[in-house]
Amino acid sequence: MAINIEVRGKIIAGGKLPLICAPLTGKNQALVLDELTGVLGKGPDLVEWRVDFFEHITNVQEVMQTAVSIRQTAGDIPVLFTIRSAKEGGQPIALSEKQVVDLYAAVCRSKSIDLIDFELSNPREQIHNLRKITSENAVKLILSYHNFEFTPGPESISLKFREAERLGADIAKAAVMPKKLEDVLTLLSLTLEARDQLQIPVISIAMGEYGSLTRMFGWVFGSVVTFAVAENSSAPGQVPIEDLKTVLAVTQKGLGQSACYSSKQSHGN
Amino acid sequence: MAINIEVRGKIIAGGKLPLICAPLTGKNQALVLDELTGVLGKGPDLVEWRVDFFEHITNVQEVMQTAVSIRQTAGDIPVLFTIRSAKEGGQPIALSEKQVVDLYAAVCRSKSIDLIDFELSNPREQIHNLRKITSENAVKLILSYHNFEFTPGPESISLKFREAERLGADIAKAAVMPKKLEDVLTLLSLTLEARDQLQIPVISIAMGEYGSLTRMFGWVFGSVVTFAVAENSSAPGQVPIEDLKTVLAVTQKGLGQSACYSSKQSHGN
Repeated sequence: MAINIEVRGKIIAGGKLPLICAPLTGKNQALVLDELTGVLGKGPDLVEWRVDFFEHITNVQEVMQTAVSIRQTAGDIPVLFTIRSAKEGGQPIALSEKQVVDLYAAVCRSKSIDLIDFELSNPREQIHNLRKITSENAVKLILSYHNFEFTPGPESISLKFREAERLGADIAKAAVMPKKLEDVLTLLSLTLEARDQLQIPVISIAMGEYGSLTRMFGWVFGSVVTFAVAENSSAPGQVPIEDLKTVLAVTQKGLGQSACYSSKQSHGN
Repeated sequence: MAINIEVRGKIIAGGKLPLICAPLTGKNQALVLDELTGVLGKGPDLVEWRVDFFEHITNVQEVMQTAVSIRQTAGDIPVLFTIRSAKEGGQPIALSEKQVVDLYAAVCRSKSIDLIDFELSNPREQIHNLRKITSENAVKLILSYHNFEFTPGPESISLKFREAERLGADIAKAAVMPKKLEDVLTLLSLTLEARDQLQIPVISIAMGEYGSLTRMFGWVFGSVVTFAVAENSSAPGQVPIEDLKTVLAVTQKGLGQSACYSSKQSHGN
């Protein structure tokens, strides 16, 4: 069973419901901050700044300033900092691999973010390096795997989760594309298995239309964070945050849990 | 792939969403009719009269009169007539097996109901007999299997579906009790298989708290009817009809289907 992970007083995993994470995809500082204000009005539990959407990503100074401003605006909502590579579904960017790692390192040291998402497909040395830096700066590390083409066999996805754990991740994440409904069930089944067998929590997502089901009820099977649209979508199949909250409330009631879901809820109590 | 079954202009299976069936559990004619009025206000697609809750079930005349009154009040909402046996989760009744079959036969001939639910565990001869009578009176036959204790292996449930088909059912139904979340996934998986392999539609239900998920999402995997609470619940895990409709609308949107769900919707168009 996964241990609890706490970020700014919020328990990731171990709570009764998943944390709802809203992406920020603005292309410059003004747009991101404007987007953040709108996003916060919808009551997410986390925000993910998808920095690969930021057009001045090569300007370290501007990225750092924006991170500080996001931190100040977000209040007690944890901020996840993600540079999604183009080969795993992100926007094309003009940074080298080394520059990406350096930017992650700099933002970790700035103390303006709470978690980072780094891809498992990166060289081991970079992962070890960022694990060290995140630990030194009390930043949580999500090691992630994305497949926008299809859903690999259950063994293959389970292997990614175990690899993330072995490499020291605080949270393991896998997002895959179902080609048929059976793939959705496969993902849910191995999420359940990971919940029972791993020492860290997992985030599991089936993307696209079929996959939208996992964004709504994957938490029942052990996925601890669900990404939803507050202002803008960052991946296919994301459900509007209001709709997601409605479904979570009904599902929770059906499951016989007494606590009622609202944006004001303190998770994990 | 299952063929479409039409009852009073409603397509059971083949539609974009499941039909919502609300149970009637009143213990006498006045209570059932009162309950029906409340139920109709919630906009179900079908109503199931659970006759095993009717305290004067031994009074054939009163049952028949009540069926006629239900028919008149229900308008164009199809009526499913069910005497659930105590051994499959129903109320204890003072009728012999033969009297149960005779009552089913009489109500079929009265033309006041549209479907009956009869259990697969009944003697073959009774099933053949009722199949003949339902066909002669244009009544649809659901052959059902219930397990309130646990979820049998997938092979075992698939066998029940195939048996129902072989015995001439218009619809096969299985309701089981999950002991763990994996059982819910098993049920959804074999529902998908039945949808692809059988010539008749199926209704699949996992009961209880875990199972409430299947009442909300099972339709995506091929279950054509979902039972929901309008006035009274008839089995564990049933969700209030308003909540169910909300979840169906959000789920349908996530699945990229354009039609929006409402009680006014004509299914199957």
